Amino acid sequence: MDEMAIQHSPESKYCFALNANTLCLRLRISKKDFPEKVCVIYGGKYTFALEQQSAVLQRSYEDRLYAYYTVTLHVTDVRVVYIFEITEKNKISYFSEDGLTTKYNFELSYYNCFQYAYINPCDLINKVEWMSTATFYQIFVDRFYMGNKNKDTSYITMKWGEIPNPKSFAGGDIKGITEKLSYLKALGINALYLTPVFQSISNHKYDISDYFEIDSQFGSKKDLKELITQAHTLGIRIVLDAVFNHCSDQLSQFQDVLKKGRNSKYYDWFIITREDPLEYEMFGACAYMPKFNTSNPEVCKFLIDIATYWIKEFDIDGWRLDVSDEISHDFWRQFRKAVKKEKADCVLIGENWHDANVYLRGDQFDSIMNYAFTKACLDFYAFDEFTATDLACKLNEILMRNTDPTNQMMLNLLDTHDTHRFLTRVKGNQDKLLSALALTYFFPGTPCIYYGTENAMEGGYDPDCRRTFDWEVAKQNNPVKSLIQKLTHLKQQESFANFDAKIYEDNEMLIVERGEYKLYINESKKDKQIEVAEILSCNHYEEGTLLSGGFLIIK
Amino acid sequence: MDEMAIQHSPESKYCFALNANTLCLRLRISKKDFPEKVCVIYGGKYTFALEQQSAVLQRSYEDRLYAYYTVTLHVTDVRVVYIFEITEKNKISYFSEDGLTTKYNFELSYYNCFQYAYINPCDLINKVEWMSTATFYQIFVDRFYMGNKNKDTSYITMKWGEIPNPKSFAGGDIKGITEKLSYLKALGINALYLTPVFQSISNHKYDISDYFEIDSQFGSKKDLKELITQAHTLGIRIVLDAVFNHCSDQLSQFQDVLKKGRNSKYYDWFIITREDPLEYEMFGACAYMPKFNTSNPEVCKFLIDIATYWIKEFDIDGWRLDVSDEISHDFWRQFRKAVKKEKADCVLIGENWHDANVYLRGDQFDSIMNYAFTKACLDFYAFDEFTATDLACKLNEILMRNTDPTNQMMLNLLDTHDTHRFLTRVKGNQDKLLSALALTYFFPGTPCIYYGTENAMEGGYDPDCRRTFDWEVAKQNNPVKSLIQKLTHLKQQESFANFDAKIYEDNEMLIVERGEYKLYINESKKDKQIEVAEILSCNHYEEGTLLSGGFLIIK
Repeated sequence: MDEMAIQHSPESKYCFALNANTLCLRLRISKKDFPEKVCVIYGGKYTFALEQQSAVLQRSYEDRLYAYYTVTLHVTDVRVVYIFEITEKNKISYFSEDGLTTKYNFELSYYNCFQYAYINPCDLINKVEWMSTATFYQIFVDRFYMGNKNKDTSYITMKWGEIPNPKSFAGGDIKGITEKLSYLKALGINALYLTPVFQSISNHKYDISDYFEIDSQFGSKKDLKELITQAHTLGIRIVLDAVFNHCSDQLSQFQDVLKKGRNSKYYDWFIITREDPLEYEMFGACAYMPKFNTSNPEVCKFLIDIATYWIKEFDIDGWRLDVSDEISHDFWRQFRKAVKKEKADCVLIGENWHDANVYLRGDQFDSIMNYAFTKACLDFYAFDEFTATDLACKLNEILMRNTDPTNQMMLNLLDTHDTHRFLTRVKGNQDKLLSALALTYFFPGTPCIYYGTENAMEGGYDPDCRRTFDWEVAKQNNPVKSLIQKLTHLKQQESFANFDAKIYEDNEMLIVERGEYKLYINESKKDKQIEVAEILSCNHYEEGTLLSGGFLIIK
Repeated sequence: MDEMAIQHSPESKYCFALNANTLCLRLRISKKDFPEKVCVIYGGKYTFALEQQSAVLQRSYEDRLYAYYTVTLHVTDVRVVYIFEITEKNKISYFSEDGLTTKYNFELSYYNCFQYAYINPCDLINKVEWMSTATFYQIFVDRFYMGNKNKDTSYITMKWGEIPNPKSFAGGDIKGITEKLSYLKALGINALYLTPVFQSISNHKYDISDYFEIDSQFGSKKDLKELITQAHTLGIRIVLDAVFNHCSDQLSQFQDVLKKGRNSKYYDWFIITREDPLEYEMFGACAYMPKFNTSNPEVCKFLIDIATYWIKEFDIDGWRLDVSDEISHDFWRQFRKAVKKEKADCVLIGENWHDANVYLRGDQFDSIMNYAFTKACLDFYAFDEFTATDLACKLNEILMRNTDPTNQMMLNLLDTHDTHRFLTRVKGNQDKLLSALALTYFFPGTPCIYYGTENAMEGGYDPDCRRTFDWEVAKQNNPVKSLIQKLTHLKQQESFANFDAKIYEDNEMLIVERGEYKLYINESKKDKQIEVAEILSCNHYEEGTLLSGGFLIIK
């Protein structure tokens, strides 16, 4: 055994409870080690010296360096202590808090065993159940569809279909989304994530000047209520964008600070670093987006009241949390409590581009926008950095960053309003988009389709990735749309959604198994022979051969 | 480089902020690797692709398997991103979220760099400053000294000096402690941790029936006030024992449940697993200690009100948290907020016997009773399991479990009311006790002396470790007492307290360096030659030779 590689720690992604009587354990070892047997020896906290049970762990995941053995324990005593017993070449080793040892003294185990001291229900990572069968569709509101033909359109600066610049206004609005709900329903979509809809002078509205008003360009509160009511009737959930890291400099509280300086009662709402001339913390280097001081309880209350207002009054189903990684954990913990008290299955999705495990332990977010998945797909499909083996390893590594319940809620995406469109990254190669979409649905979590992807829409970095939706193209059928429909249907099957994924490379192909379904992805240079019984979906599969660049889903 | 061994993760013990502009980083590598240079390349979150700084990490800690490189960064932008650059055999590698790579693309760093996205002040691990220079003394109240000679003594069942049984009452009380404050002051003690003093029918009082009353055997609220006032005058702080995992079955709320069953308004205060006959969760298997249901907000409020009451009304300086590992994180977060709001430097010390890092991230406890340190000392001094090298490795490993601010608050102890007395574990060998005490003071954290240790008091497991204090022996001087006095004086020097410890083995001796002070511990079988200038304290050091079993402190 390579001792250097072995890793475990209780109350972490290596040891988490699903409920008061179910405990999941993971043990990481070197991928090069193949012990004959890996067991957990476990028992009650106060009886372990006298009485022990054991269970076998299975090799379940492999990333580039490590293999992960897992087991799910069903316990009656919620005070669980344990050590691991590893048999290799007929020699037994023990792995405890003291590391790998050849003997283990159960008499003194209270000093060095692992423990989940007590499974307290309020500390569990609770799954938002509807996320399992959801397919999200992200809408950049100004660019999707203009529904209100009677509104004052004087703010519109571009014709629908033109290429946008950073300051363009195209006229898309909430009513437009409502009118297109049946289109979205037909695509199979059952959750929408809308970029901000609150009062703001920009087209993207990430600089909000009034969090309690809908921006008049986008419509009214009545329009939002209508959208949500109709969406809910169709079984479509609505997630809004919470921009709580910063606001617009037009926010009345910030204006008060500009006017009164230190005498403003809102002075401590922001992070003022110099009084005269006024300097303050902001988003990035954008002076028009001052950062909120969430170390101030008044600010916390203000923001939390916003979050609960839109749930209480409009019955929204979740918040996507903008720049969530720059806001304090302490704030998010308060925020989560207030939101979940209002609506227990309201989903919280952070915008964290990196390993966000510190936010995903059940006390802060349910999920994040899974940009690590995005990057893995880019490395494989676009940048030529990854073989199928590399991708399998990376995807397993991403899964091992978080617990199972969290993985099942991750928002997996190929692109967003903050990236190039995927199709543009792969130089317009639609086969690659199809293949990557299949993978997005097969990877544990919740897929999120960026508006227009179904039309094979292209676009470079912001603002080019925010082009207007082409409703003429949308009338025609196309392979991307057909595939999304098929995959969305599959995703809604319990027989698919409720299974973990097994991801590995075989014969230069990436394979993902999920329940009775199996996805083959062939991005190698060679065509591959595959004998199959029942084909569910495919691209470039002909007469028993999965051609280079194709994919195949079988049952 | 052994890739398997490399470990880093942001916002963890590997990356923590001391304040808004100071960030500490640790990188773990294999102990067998000695790269020429380990650097961090860092910058602002939004400018990293264009502008980078670098700093060199130093090899600071070594445990059995790993070496830890550390650096402290002083940053102006509180949004810090970074990767590591490792030079070995003139080859450069990078270590990022993507692991070890031979190249690194700064253009795409927003996908895979490490980041401390924003140092929010409210998420910091705040040090309780007085812990740096404190020496604790733990008193098992019934056995220390009877001060109130006028009380009803009919409850007393044993003569002072007799060996106790589990049910013995000896008569010690709060007034007794007050009377002995000058004795403790002379010993150098400046913090007392008292086992529970609230109403309870047992001698240990870990089964509390009224949390708002002092047990009449121990005295009155007036007595406690008097103790605290006099202690504070002498610069001695008082920490009480918070038994919040469970209570006595005599608690009025539990009695109400016993009487009214499901109709009791306190039914959900406990964890009832069966209604008739009543079954419920308890501490261990003790039916007379029902467990509180801290998933119930009413219970949280009840317990938090207790905690703040004794701070507000009696100005106590801290809580030791009994069975803290079985209570929910959610409760402890609320608890910490309420306590720290009342008194910011009130210390919170958990009773966690295992790696408790999940409790020690700044949102729950400041410190724990450091039983891992206890066990390391036992393995070295008592069980013959550890060489000096083993001990050095283990002590470094214990330090690497937590951040620096936490390490400086850990309660380091050789024994408590829940263990054998250390002197008994080492079969009465006083040299070993002296040596271990020196180590306890030199190890980062706050030493805690169990009452009577200064008298070389012995005792096996509970109840034998809870014998009565011998005030006749205490009148005489003895080497243990002298050493404690000397060490306590040293501990109160800023030139000692504010330095990290460097712990290693040299010539079969354990060496601990701390600022300009150096401790040699020789538990090898051989005598060792050591040339010294200024001796501060020693045992078995003669004419330039540290004999086997001795220790030496120099400046």
